[in-house]
Amino acid sequence: MSFDFAPLFPPTLPPPAMRWSGSPKYNFVGGNNDPGEVPLDGLMAAAQSVLQREGRTLATYGLNSGPQGYRPLREFLSAKLKRDAGMTCTPDDILIVSGSLQALDLVNAALLTRGDTVIVEKDNYQGSLNRFTKLGVTAFGIPLDAGGMKMDALEAALKNLKAKGVTPKFIYTIPTVQNPTATILDESRRARMLALADEYGVPIVEDDCYADLIWSGERPPALHAMSKSDNVIHIGSFSKSIAPALRVGFVVAPWTVMSRMLALKTDAGSGALEQMVLAEFCAPHFTTHVPALRKGLRKKVETLMEALNEQFGTAAEFDDPKGGIFLWVKLPDNVDTLKLYQAALKEGVAINPGPEWSTDKAHSASRLRICFASPTHQEIRDGIKVLAEVCRREFGVPARSANVERAKA
Amino acid sequence: MSFDFAPLFPPTLPPPAMRWSGSPKYNFVGGNNDPGEVPLDGLMAAAQSVLQREGRTLATYGLNSGPQGYRPLREFLSAKLKRDAGMTCTPDDILIVSGSLQALDLVNAALLTRGDTVIVEKDNYQGSLNRFTKLGVTAFGIPLDAGGMKMDALEAALKNLKAKGVTPKFIYTIPTVQNPTATILDESRRARMLALADEYGVPIVEDDCYADLIWSGERPPALHAMSKSDNVIHIGSFSKSIAPALRVGFVVAPWTVMSRMLALKTDAGSGALEQMVLAEFCAPHFTTHVPALRKGLRKKVETLMEALNEQFGTAAEFDDPKGGIFLWVKLPDNVDTLKLYQAALKEGVAINPGPEWSTDKAHSASRLRICFASPTHQEIRDGIKVLAEVCRREFGVPARSANVERAKA
Repeated sequence: MSFDFAPLFPPTLPPPAMRWSGSPKYNFVGGNNDPGEVPLDGLMAAAQSVLQREGRTLATYGLNSGPQGYRPLREFLSAKLKRDAGMTCTPDDILIVSGSLQALDLVNAALLTRGDTVIVEKDNYQGSLNRFTKLGVTAFGIPLDAGGMKMDALEAALKNLKAKGVTPKFIYTIPTVQNPTATILDESRRARMLALADEYGVPIVEDDCYADLIWSGERPPALHAMSKSDNVIHIGSFSKSIAPALRVGFVVAPWTVMSRMLALKTDAGSGALEQMVLAEFCAPHFTTHVPALRKGLRKKVETLMEALNEQFGTAAEFDDPKGGIFLWVKLPDNVDTLKLYQAALKEGVAINPGPEWSTDKAHSASRLRICFASPTHQEIRDGIKVLAEVCRREFGVPARSANVERAKA
Repeated sequence: MSFDFAPLFPPTLPPPAMRWSGSPKYNFVGGNNDPGEVPLDGLMAAAQSVLQREGRTLATYGLNSGPQGYRPLREFLSAKLKRDAGMTCTPDDILIVSGSLQALDLVNAALLTRGDTVIVEKDNYQGSLNRFTKLGVTAFGIPLDAGGMKMDALEAALKNLKAKGVTPKFIYTIPTVQNPTATILDESRRARMLALADEYGVPIVEDDCYADLIWSGERPPALHAMSKSDNVIHIGSFSKSIAPALRVGFVVAPWTVMSRMLALKTDAGSGALEQMVLAEFCAPHFTTHVPALRKGLRKKVETLMEALNEQFGTAAEFDDPKGGIFLWVKLPDNVDTLKLYQAALKEGVAINPGPEWSTDKAHSASRLRICFASPTHQEIRDGIKVLAEVCRREFGVPARSANVERAKA
């Protein structure tokens, strides 16, 4: 007879995962990248040269770089963050982590206690929202417009919370190609956010994972760069610029916080081979690889927008994004995207329903996130066609598609 | 003025880490491996071939293998665990993790609640003991002899705990090259442990990270293999057999527990490149690489034992280990290895003081763990000489070294 483990589980354990049954045919979820844009030759050459030169250091935890991660990668990042984001930080200010998700876990563990409040953009990254929920932390959502988080709303929220005696632990923001709205906070809003943060004594956690993917290649300076009070913890990743299956991200933080995150990071270091190969590849090739990647992504989003216009007509509303790998789409109010998600999945189309990506379930009920980097152009066209068919069947919209009037099935 | 993060820290936060200041000259800590034994050519060839063939899958979280990790690596493990440890498990029973430390975190999170009790070998892996402490879990230590955990003591402990109404959540054991004692539990003790586990309704967590490193290449079957009630969670790693800086380990668990660990593993997968390179390398080369590694390690421990005999004479007691990368040494009772550790570190010699590796501080006060895989033969000889000098200066022992009588300085 088999031992029954179930009675041993703590009552707070999350529900069990389902067995993985493969990827859906049309996969518009998950922040995956374009397989065609993985810089294979460069990564292979990097693996050869770095292993040849210093592969024997793999015998030592942390290589010869200590617990903050492979030093040449931190040196690359220090230079890159200066060049691209205007940030001043040394390799000693940078912690390499196993993807930005570990960065979020470490920042949260270092700063949050059950019952705390944080301020976030209302529509937000599911992985962050889920983490706050699991920690028993209230995520107070601030509305966005086409320019990102609305500063008047932020000010009002800080004021109201203060009146209730609540000081938020931090403002968690994705200011540069926000997830899921793809908005970019301009420099003046950044300045205002920093001023409000100082005024109310609330630090900022800046999640900058998508910042490399602005089509124009020109980004506003990071909040971290603009801060005069060293009150910004900055998080980044190689998932979007190189490849997500490489689990390599980073955090830039003042030593007060860094020293606490190091004490919490009890994993004996992040994967060394991935750090070594990334450093070896990125130092010479990052600035040529990323523009090529952006160009490919821009073509994909154009295909997606065309497909949506063709299949959904005016029923699908969205802004032409300035960068990134996802589109945040508004469908007519009667569409419940949680239901659409279920019905579409049965037809092999995976989407992110809005309510999983927002603190405001009503506002997001008819919204969805569509990731466009991973499927091919043909898959984007075919998948959106199937999605429109399912949506029409379930909700009667779009009434017309591909310029042909359709009756509800 | 800089923002002060300190008032935001939760009261339960561990103390801050110190800045890393490089490795000590004679480094006998940390479970590092022999740099000379990293199979560089094999890893380079593996990186080339696997990236060439399927590198584009790096664009997808989890590759094409889902959340349990790169399938070819799980296939290799399934065959290897059958061949070496007698275990029957399919790739679907295996979860690839970011080193065995993540395995411990997931198993603990799935099964433990503050206030719980677990049973462990009295002298034990610091990383596991620290985890139990942090979780508010009592680790009840069972004494060991030259054959590993003493089964009479285990039975007595289970009986006494039961009389007090305590059912331990699990028995955490390192049965095969135990850390730090290097003992190996023989098949009859394993059978007895399994019988006791069944009798008292307590499952077993088997940490088998060192099992590949038995000099003879012959190991007893895993507890997982011998269990008739599927009550064993089995943990393994590539840190000791290939390289520790590659953060790749694994857990074999019944689906009841696996599905909970998957729900807890919110890191979007473990490093894919490391998994791919390991699978590509190990499938053809594991069975030739590991015997060569063992041979090198055996030579190092012989150098270490010679150096201890020469420098400490009879003051250092230890058993000739049957495998592994560390030696558990008893010094005279008046030696406080916590103090020895501090004094030796100032002279560039890092050791693991016994009390950090035991639930019994008195028993372990004059004991220490010496890792021998990473330093060169010359460093072993020189480092042990310095250690003996420090020990004599601080504690008056050994009175003689290198066959010369010494006065206390």
